[in-house]
Amino acid sequence: MTGSDTFFEEALSLLGPRGITRDPDLVAPSLTDWRGRYTGRAIALASPATTAEVAALVKLCDAHDVPIVPQGGNSGMSGGATPDESGTAVVLSLRRMNAIREIDVEGRRATCEAGVVLQTLHEAADAKGLRFPLTLGGKGSATVGGLISTNAGGCQVLRHGSMRALVLGLEAVLPDGQVFSMLTPLKKDNRGFDLKQLLIGSEGTMGVVTAATLKLLPAVADRVVIWAGVPTLGEARKLMLFCEEAMGDALEGFEVLPQACLDAVLDHLPDSRSPLEGRHGWHVLIEVVADSSAADTLRERCENMMASAFENELVEDAVMSASEAQAEAFWLLRESISPAERERGPAMQHDISVPVEKMPEFVETTAPMIEAKWPGTEAVAFGHLGDGNVHYHVIAPNAEDALGWQTGPGKEISRYVHDLVTEWGGSISAEHGIGQMKRDELARLGDPVALSMLRAVKQALDPKGILNPGKLI
Amino acid sequence: MTGSDTFFEEALSLLGPRGITRDPDLVAPSLTDWRGRYTGRAIALASPATTAEVAALVKLCDAHDVPIVPQGGNSGMSGGATPDESGTAVVLSLRRMNAIREIDVEGRRATCEAGVVLQTLHEAADAKGLRFPLTLGGKGSATVGGLISTNAGGCQVLRHGSMRALVLGLEAVLPDGQVFSMLTPLKKDNRGFDLKQLLIGSEGTMGVVTAATLKLLPAVADRVVIWAGVPTLGEARKLMLFCEEAMGDALEGFEVLPQACLDAVLDHLPDSRSPLEGRHGWHVLIEVVADSSAADTLRERCENMMASAFENELVEDAVMSASEAQAEAFWLLRESISPAERERGPAMQHDISVPVEKMPEFVETTAPMIEAKWPGTEAVAFGHLGDGNVHYHVIAPNAEDALGWQTGPGKEISRYVHDLVTEWGGSISAEHGIGQMKRDELARLGDPVALSMLRAVKQALDPKGILNPGKLI
Repeated sequence: MTGSDTFFEEALSLLGPRGITRDPDLVAPSLTDWRGRYTGRAIALASPATTAEVAALVKLCDAHDVPIVPQGGNSGMSGGATPDESGTAVVLSLRRMNAIREIDVEGRRATCEAGVVLQTLHEAADAKGLRFPLTLGGKGSATVGGLISTNAGGCQVLRHGSMRALVLGLEAVLPDGQVFSMLTPLKKDNRGFDLKQLLIGSEGTMGVVTAATLKLLPAVADRVVIWAGVPTLGEARKLMLFCEEAMGDALEGFEVLPQACLDAVLDHLPDSRSPLEGRHGWHVLIEVVADSSAADTLRERCENMMASAFENELVEDAVMSASEAQAEAFWLLRESISPAERERGPAMQHDISVPVEKMPEFVETTAPMIEAKWPGTEAVAFGHLGDGNVHYHVIAPNAEDALGWQTGPGKEISRYVHDLVTEWGGSISAEHGIGQMKRDELARLGDPVALSMLRAVKQALDPKGILNPGKLI
Repeated sequence: MTGSDTFFEEALSLLGPRGITRDPDLVAPSLTDWRGRYTGRAIALASPATTAEVAALVKLCDAHDVPIVPQGGNSGMSGGATPDESGTAVVLSLRRMNAIREIDVEGRRATCEAGVVLQTLHEAADAKGLRFPLTLGGKGSATVGGLISTNAGGCQVLRHGSMRALVLGLEAVLPDGQVFSMLTPLKKDNRGFDLKQLLIGSEGTMGVVTAATLKLLPAVADRVVIWAGVPTLGEARKLMLFCEEAMGDALEGFEVLPQACLDAVLDHLPDSRSPLEGRHGWHVLIEVVADSSAADTLRERCENMMASAFENELVEDAVMSASEAQAEAFWLLRESISPAERERGPAMQHDISVPVEKMPEFVETTAPMIEAKWPGTEAVAFGHLGDGNVHYHVIAPNAEDALGWQTGPGKEISRYVHDLVTEWGGSISAEHGIGQMKRDELARLGDPVALSMLRAVKQALDPKGILNPGKLI
């Protein structure tokens, strides 16, 4: 028997046949990321059913020096859950740990295992008259563990923050197999720094998240979605500040897209039409929500706000959703940007952020720079203005030889975009994480002090480097 | 010259005569904590004026193996900023770094140096029509750096969280003298875990906080303070959940005290009177606030809420503040509990928390246990019901031989209270930190996995252990 055979047999006796497999057909789906950019190899696919089994497996891996690649819904954007090509690692899927252990209605929180799919959590909270406010495109596959490990964002971050702000308690298996168990939240606890922060956003490099206690909110009783047109991104920001002032915490979303983006969406979606009659430099989607205590005045407050926005010449045109179906239709336009952009041809995509107030200037300054430096390209920005987070796509001059363009000039363009973002004090990864995709760029552009802190903590918690090697750092 | 002479001379040449002193009269106030429980010795008191000077000093200390005790307002509750008796350390006061570098009105944030006093920050925000929502008794001396290093809480945590939730950006000098510089906040940034969390609440053991960017909120346009009487702490919790449901985020404070506590306050405060005519098992102070967008309906909403609370028999009696003066008067009663309790005689004080929903049961179960085990004592709980955080005082049977009681049975009582809190899944330090006061108790009762993580990170960032040795871990 080889070393990996010995390891496999021991793991099999720990986890049973449902808990680990080497069957190539069963293992294969976990070896490629969902965008198909990365493919690796693995000794086996382990799917433990309990925290104790995860801990036993991690201890075994530690003893055999077998690297571990934790995986949730395998819907990450940066290859953070895909093993490398050495074939020495085991993929540790959390999908069998999919119990919602408790929904505490009074305390407004849910305790769930790492493998719970986001949409399942939404539905479970909804059934209790509550909601989990974070949502994103991959909600049908993304798991709680993956969302925590990547500190996922989405379209509701403006008010509720990213995953970090919603994690009240956490359970994780550390690289040495010990269980870090802080599921019961204490609202006040000052016994040193908040240890669970080490696990949130560290992409499975510091520990394997096995369960979490998450914050829930009262269900949305009513919402209004407003679609508005403004001439510039700077004007969009002014409108946003105005809406924040007027609506306070009721403002939950503020998304922006240029006219060209909307045109692409309208081409892409059959039977769709623009919410506004005219053309505008930028379009804005504004979501305002109320729970039952404030629902009866919501529509009136939105009408007052928009009347005042017109008076103050903050919008060129605007329309308020008259029904939930129309609200959905507006959001569908926003959510179709990515597929619509993909239809337009190959593009380099960047998930970046800059300080919130600099976003308009950043886009207006850098897009022409890129288009001038690489003639024929088009730089398109859209996304979460309130978070300073834009998805910044640079579209190839023509669709021929897409691969050649992406690995040649496209790569240079990405480096250039990352250089610009760094110059502007921003982040080369706003939402999607570093994974393997941006690891070299982080090493090249990251603040050396921050990188050395990250590395020192990693070395301290995982001296052998068995947890998700080759990712993040 | 001795080693410490050499160190002092070199430090003097770095910082100049205003930046470091050995004058015993000048050094003395920094050697004793404000409650007078701990007194230590030090080589010198350093007061650098800039982050660069702090970094230079830390490097020098590193080279000379001189331990550093960072100190802000020296108003901590756990001896965390007081040097030990060896006299080998330098006290690093941040008080000269007291500039508010910027208040960004549009972005609602303040960038201030570590030595800025909390009250100064309140006033500066106020002058711009904004507010910094965290406040506490020591606001006239507590500094931003100390508040961050201890993750301070206070009476507004219910809605706004403790210091951790208000720190948007951070600058700190690490144990090797490198400067961690993340002052410009990015709302979304996923490049590994959130490194600034290592500095928040770690009591100066991981780095010296030199500056921070803090979240501000719109100024309070109006507030209502309600004083209510309920029979039990369990009923107080029911009332709190009802108020949360009715007022949502407008509910900013929910403080509880037993009748005996109020009696002590009324004895202590000349010319004070009880807000309610009758006597009640527990008294509740409820603070509801509104910014300008919601101020005009605030009073009406509070009236409706209380009418409904009466109807549902959630209160025995209640009164709403009719003016800001009356609101202040209600708060004065709450804030006078500590001095009033001190007048009643020696007591062992505990700053503890349990999971929020267990608080009533914890108090009702454990107080009789303590009073039975140590006849003549009285266990008094009051504080932040919404945070699961009570100040839990056990009053001595008689005031004679206070010191003997405190170091004898009192110590046993504290161990017993900490045992109970740990059994109930709570924290032996809710707000005040571990410092030197609770270090042994944390080592005795802390979760071994959590402690080993804390120690591993400390060892990684400060292998020589020069930052605030003997505190926390």
